[in-house]
Amino acid sequence: MGNYRLDLSYDGSRYRGWQRLDNPDLTIQGKLEQVISRMLGVETEVIGSGRTDGGTHAMGQVANFHGKTELSCGEILAYLRQYLPEDIGVQAVTAVDERFHSRYNAVEKTYRYRIWNSDAPCVFERKYVWQMPEPLDLERMEEAASLLLGTHDFLPFSSLKKSKKSTVRTLRRLEIRRAGPEVQITATADGFLYHMVRILVGTLVEVGLKRRDTAEIPAIFETGIRAEAGETVPAKGLCLMEVVYR
Amino acid sequence: MGNYRLDLSYDGSRYRGWQRLDNPDLTIQGKLEQVISRMLGVETEVIGSGRTDGGTHAMGQVANFHGKTELSCGEILAYLRQYLPEDIGVQAVTAVDERFHSRYNAVEKTYRYRIWNSDAPCVFERKYVWQMPEPLDLERMEEAASLLLGTHDFLPFSSLKKSKKSTVRTLRRLEIRRAGPEVQITATADGFLYHMVRILVGTLVEVGLKRRDTAEIPAIFETGIRAEAGETVPAKGLCLMEVVYR
Repeated sequence: MGNYRLDLSYDGSRYRGWQRLDNPDLTIQGKLEQVISRMLGVETEVIGSGRTDGGTHAMGQVANFHGKTELSCGEILAYLRQYLPEDIGVQAVTAVDERFHSRYNAVEKTYRYRIWNSDAPCVFERKYVWQMPEPLDLERMEEAASLLLGTHDFLPFSSLKKSKKSTVRTLRRLEIRRAGPEVQITATADGFLYHMVRILVGTLVEVGLKRRDTAEIPAIFETGIRAEAGETVPAKGLCLMEVVYR
Repeated sequence: MGNYRLDLSYDGSRYRGWQRLDNPDLTIQGKLEQVISRMLGVETEVIGSGRTDGGTHAMGQVANFHGKTELSCGEILAYLRQYLPEDIGVQAVTAVDERFHSRYNAVEKTYRYRIWNSDAPCVFERKYVWQMPEPLDLERMEEAASLLLGTHDFLPFSSLKKSKKSTVRTLRRLEIRRAGPEVQITATADGFLYHMVRILVGTLVEVGLKRRDTAEIPAIFETGIRAEAGETVPAKGLCLMEVVYR
């Protein structure tokens, strides 16, 4: 029985997210399991490093599956590239230790959110950015970002009702960068809660639009109330960039 | 009666090209004429700097239309952005001299062809590149490009049967550049014949794959026979970058 790691990219536009639904064509996990199960001749589960939302993309998603096959990693790669749709790309297939688990062993993730900060149309990247025509004040956003960094209970920056598991996370990097008409927000943490990146970005955008004061940030952590944080920005601007393992 | 210049970008994936067909939804010109005619309340023709093929894109297409309206250029821009689909972007609307004609007055055009020269999947740019997994030898291609430059009868590098009009063009620039896994070919000329860029690229690719010798290039011009030149590469890798006016 082998354990295979998959390094994946996908354009999430057509999908309802990572996680399997009844119809395999609707999700990334569903599509992968369909093709891999056919390849192995047996129903096979594909484990992802985490779920991505409907419409969210990935450059560096990591998944793994267990299976018995005579095929080499190169042959598995060729099979998957042949049968997966062109909006799901397998970058690499690697044989890994049997104990490797793409979700449990992940120690760090990086997401990027892309804002098209212009009223000019963004024809070619339109499915990968969120258009916000009003100018953003990056200095204000950077100040707010510095208050979000570090170890906090991020529950108010999530769509979780409440959680039995810890909602404390360490946000190690929250970088804001202008690249032409685009504003890119890159977030690295030991893990992210449900909708956490999209709510962090929504909060930063409200600060950048001067609809919210930087000084409000600590109070959001103190009260712990979701409604105190910003709006959840659209999924299509979000991309999972990298998953790091020990 | 005003004359308005449009600077346009479009993702040609969904369209059968620039030129109007019976169904306005199938072409870029058709979509523009539909929206502009509704805006002006009268059937209006939109003149383009030239046709682009079905599936070919544009970053810097230029068009113009004549019409009588109380609307300012800013208002026309806002109207078009509101009613055009998101794969057709209007970058600017400018009031121009009545004699301005986007096709007759164009003195130079630049196209870029993008080749994804890797067997790795190209998920996000897949509609804008042509994938060619076999490695291309850029030095050979540059040598061939230098023989294509200049003033020639480009008839053998076109899909025209024959032409009453001159098929002599001056190719001023034919640059080949590697950008990561991509090979970009940029061509500038006083004008291009039907399919000319795609056949020039097809010929260069055959040289880059060592299926064809650089020395064959002059013979193609001499014989003037289409079959001597390379294959027509797919439309989706092609993008009209710029149209220059005097």
